[in-house]
Amino acid sequence: MAIRARILGAAAGGGLPQWNCGCGNCNAARRGEIPAQTQSSVAVSVNGSDWAILNASPDIRAQMACTPELHPVGLRESPLKAVLLTNGDIDHVAGLLTLREQQPFDLFATREIHDVLSGNPIFSALKADLVRRRTVALGQGFDLLPGLRATLFAVPGKVPLYLEGETVQTDLEGEQTVGVHLHAEGRDVFYIPGCAAMRPDLAARVRGADLVMFDGTLWRDDEMIAEGLGTKTGQRMGHMSMSGPDGSIAAFAELGVARKVFVHMNNTNPVLRPGSEQRAEAEARGWTIGEDGMEIET
Amino acid sequence: MAIRARILGAAAGGGLPQWNCGCGNCNAARRGEIPAQTQSSVAVSVNGSDWAILNASPDIRAQMACTPELHPVGLRESPLKAVLLTNGDIDHVAGLLTLREQQPFDLFATREIHDVLSGNPIFSALKADLVRRRTVALGQGFDLLPGLRATLFAVPGKVPLYLEGETVQTDLEGEQTVGVHLHAEGRDVFYIPGCAAMRPDLAARVRGADLVMFDGTLWRDDEMIAEGLGTKTGQRMGHMSMSGPDGSIAAFAELGVARKVFVHMNNTNPVLRPGSEQRAEAEARGWTIGEDGMEIET
Repeated sequence: MAIRARILGAAAGGGLPQWNCGCGNCNAARRGEIPAQTQSSVAVSVNGSDWAILNASPDIRAQMACTPELHPVGLRESPLKAVLLTNGDIDHVAGLLTLREQQPFDLFATREIHDVLSGNPIFSALKADLVRRRTVALGQGFDLLPGLRATLFAVPGKVPLYLEGETVQTDLEGEQTVGVHLHAEGRDVFYIPGCAAMRPDLAARVRGADLVMFDGTLWRDDEMIAEGLGTKTGQRMGHMSMSGPDGSIAAFAELGVARKVFVHMNNTNPVLRPGSEQRAEAEARGWTIGEDGMEIET
Repeated sequence: MAIRARILGAAAGGGLPQWNCGCGNCNAARRGEIPAQTQSSVAVSVNGSDWAILNASPDIRAQMACTPELHPVGLRESPLKAVLLTNGDIDHVAGLLTLREQQPFDLFATREIHDVLSGNPIFSALKADLVRRRTVALGQGFDLLPGLRATLFAVPGKVPLYLEGETVQTDLEGEQTVGVHLHAEGRDVFYIPGCAAMRPDLAARVRGADLVMFDGTLWRDDEMIAEGLGTKTGQRMGHMSMSGPDGSIAAFAELGVARKVFVHMNNTNPVLRPGSEQRAEAEARGWTIGEDGMEIET
């Protein structure tokens, strides 16, 4: 029994194209010249009939509609048994509002992320008697699905944008931004869609893994500024870049990870263009650029 | 200058197919046998370059992506200038979370609907300095867009599902469920996606209108129960049905409305099947069944 990981959405918040963005990538996606990508979510399964979703993106309805494995069986029996959140960002939680239709499942998150949801009455659309809010402590293993063990761990990051105060620590390590370690039948898979920096403990944790799906938000830290699309660097947004000496490609070079897949790409990232030199470079360094519908079996 | 109304989403909350629904219509939509429909939203314009959206559905990203009129002009200039909400239901407000990308627009709603949003910190993702929350009193005309006058009025309905208490009044008339009267160049258009009953004042208001887009949630009041999909009648959900002596088809029969279009159809509604006898009956009675992408110019 292997771990199946199906990328439902490979893009970061906003998606490709983003509704109000006229950058080169977004316009190319609108013209069908490069593949469009929906927002950040991965479905996982070990038996092929029970599935968990890692992050509930705003695009979840379309993502599920084009994924036959997630279609209901019978009148109202869904293969979706669990949802796990890695932070409280809108691109990772807004899809919960779509999952409101009288359907039971387990909703796993840290206490801090659950508190974000509890602070918003609109999420009570997920009725307490159907959607069980399961609080998971960092480092505490739990069964995400029968036969699929999961452990959450802190990675450097920040609170969601809509909760930012006057000053923002962008490499906070705590319950607000986590990575996921999945384990089944001797296989180790990591899902880390947001990470501000590689630190020794994280490097040690993922060393030798069978699969890592990792934060691919930006190619360069100043990419959005250079495109004229904003004033924020990747670091300010809590994301390390792919390229450069402090980038993820360099950080993973010696970690012996069998399969390395970028997820959570911002619409400006040049790797979203299949013919780009940046994509060729990432691939030459052993990375796969994730895309909607891609399945990786480990 | 006419009023253009583009149906972005013709379905009620959940859409067609609904993620966890295995009813006949949802499965037929998954197989491509009948057209899929996204959730409840209509875009309107008078000049073709400035647009307002009536209700922000969870499917708004996909809806905008397939509507060239709503694509950005230049790097970040959107034709979307205003959003108007007719109630606080998830199918009408969740899309606001998608509209968070540093884009200015006016957000119009009653005080009561604004209060629902204010009670949820997640909507502060719409920054106050960009998204102007404009409170509109019932009966008070305002410019939704330059040259497009709008007036809100109460229609019988209920509070959003996630705010329901132990007892629920389903034909409340107040600020929680409203209809919209649009007026430009002598044309009168009404948008009423949720309405629990036809009352004399509403009948008088819409009489002789050029276009009414009206609540088409269910064909029959007990339709969801009959399909084995729940325990609620249409009345319990705050919606009058299309058929029957108290239904909308009968209620509009003598009102002299030039174009009558059903919107906000639940996935169980047989009129969503192009070949159904119910659709034929509705059409024979002068109604058009709305669908995604349909444009009506008045």
